[in-house]
Amino acid sequence: MHFASERTLDDGIGEREFTLDDVTGILWTPPIASPSTPVPLILMGQPGGIGMRRMYSRLAARARSAASYGFASISVELPGSGDRAPLPETEHARADLARAISAGEQPSDTVIDRLILPLVDRTVPELQTTLDEVLELPEIGERVGFSGGAIAIGVRLAATDTRIMAAGLFAGSYVPRSTMAEARRITIPLHVLLQWDDEGNDRGMALELFDAFGSREKTLYANMGGHTGVPHFAGDDAARFFARHLGVDAG
Amino acid sequence: MHFASERTLDDGIGEREFTLDDVTGILWTPPIASPSTPVPLILMGQPGGIGMRRMYSRLAARARSAASYGFASISVELPGSGDRAPLPETEHARADLARAISAGEQPSDTVIDRLILPLVDRTVPELQTTLDEVLELPEIGERVGFSGGAIAIGVRLAATDTRIMAAGLFAGSYVPRSTMAEARRITIPLHVLLQWDDEGNDRGMALELFDAFGSREKTLYANMGGHTGVPHFAGDDAARFFARHLGVDAG
Repeated sequence: MHFASERTLDDGIGEREFTLDDVTGILWTPPIASPSTPVPLILMGQPGGIGMRRMYSRLAARARSAASYGFASISVELPGSGDRAPLPETEHARADLARAISAGEQPSDTVIDRLILPLVDRTVPELQTTLDEVLELPEIGERVGFSGGAIAIGVRLAATDTRIMAAGLFAGSYVPRSTMAEARRITIPLHVLLQWDDEGNDRGMALELFDAFGSREKTLYANMGGHTGVPHFAGDDAARFFARHLGVDAG
Repeated sequence: MHFASERTLDDGIGEREFTLDDVTGILWTPPIASPSTPVPLILMGQPGGIGMRRMYSRLAARARSAASYGFASISVELPGSGDRAPLPETEHARADLARAISAGEQPSDTVIDRLILPLVDRTVPELQTTLDEVLELPEIGERVGFSGGAIAIGVRLAATDTRIMAAGLFAGSYVPRSTMAEARRITIPLHVLLQWDDEGNDRGMALELFDAFGSREKTLYANMGGHTGVPHFAGDDAARFFARHLGVDAG
């Protein structure tokens, strides 16, 4: 893990850009983070195809919110996004999905699988390698949460990586049938956001996915509005979820 | 409104039992409540058939939580409950509903209507008369929220009484079809609790009711477990909902 740049934001949050093999990412740490007070880490998911540069202000806002609870945050460029090598098959599948949705059709399982599964298969090992490295930093503790979109990636991680202790998921995209099966294996606490009128989502499928999660503690938190209309107070509630499960008083 | 008894709980909360015509109830006020600092009021709903005496510890706990946010709370004995004159028709309907549920049958609309509608028709005017009186007290302000079970009562009040500014509802019982129609007329902010595995509830009907609410701000907050398994943090989130909408900084 190579830190390519480092700066301190106005509120004392450290922001470091890093590279790890051909992966790039950003690590934010709150002012209190130090070897004597290592802090929990939030691994932030992001939707595919947009790229971290365009997502920066939203990611940084989430990292600042997490820092106010004493958490570090990390975000990694997804395969095929930003400056990374494009993935033509994924782009074709994304265009096919968009066409189906705008035509008012139910997207086929095949299109969803073509879009999501190769991305999950590529991304999850990269995120795990990144976790291996960042958890070696003395200012980062052992408590890790996953937060954000790219729900199929979050489900795969939550189901298979025992370092993830809690996950806040955004039920904001179509999910493959095989993701439903993986969801049943999850046992960690979950906080699931759903936008009730999400134009890029199927509400019935989102409720079915929520029902499938194997976790004993899971909360569905549904608000009005479209994909980008998550109300401000929902962010606060999600932050408190992580504080309960990753904070110094947790566990 | 006649105050039959008055005492101060250990944390300085005032607790007054009152009678108003043949209605009895309890009013809790936080220590800060005074004519110079009138406080918002939470009208607490409760399930029918149990009675305030048996519900006392749960109601008092909710009143203490509300008081910690600077809110007064009031609860009123429902018709047919506690020491009030029994309602044989309602008791028959409740027994019929319980029989249907324990036999694994879908309760008929007729049974639901027989249980709920007469109770709503009787209770809502009583609650409104109680509000008329309690809002005359100088230590009680004008901001009123409805909180709790008896969702059909909450829906009728939220749809018709403009004094109710926000409602926290518990989607924990069967609702008449006519309640669905009333739900569409509600425009105030709503915080809706749903227990995902509620044994006395129909999840599909609860989701349909949530969808029906006309409010622009409504949040569905679904947690695992049965009817009485609402997790502790859900109470905190509900309290913050009321603080946003009824608190001194709200509106």
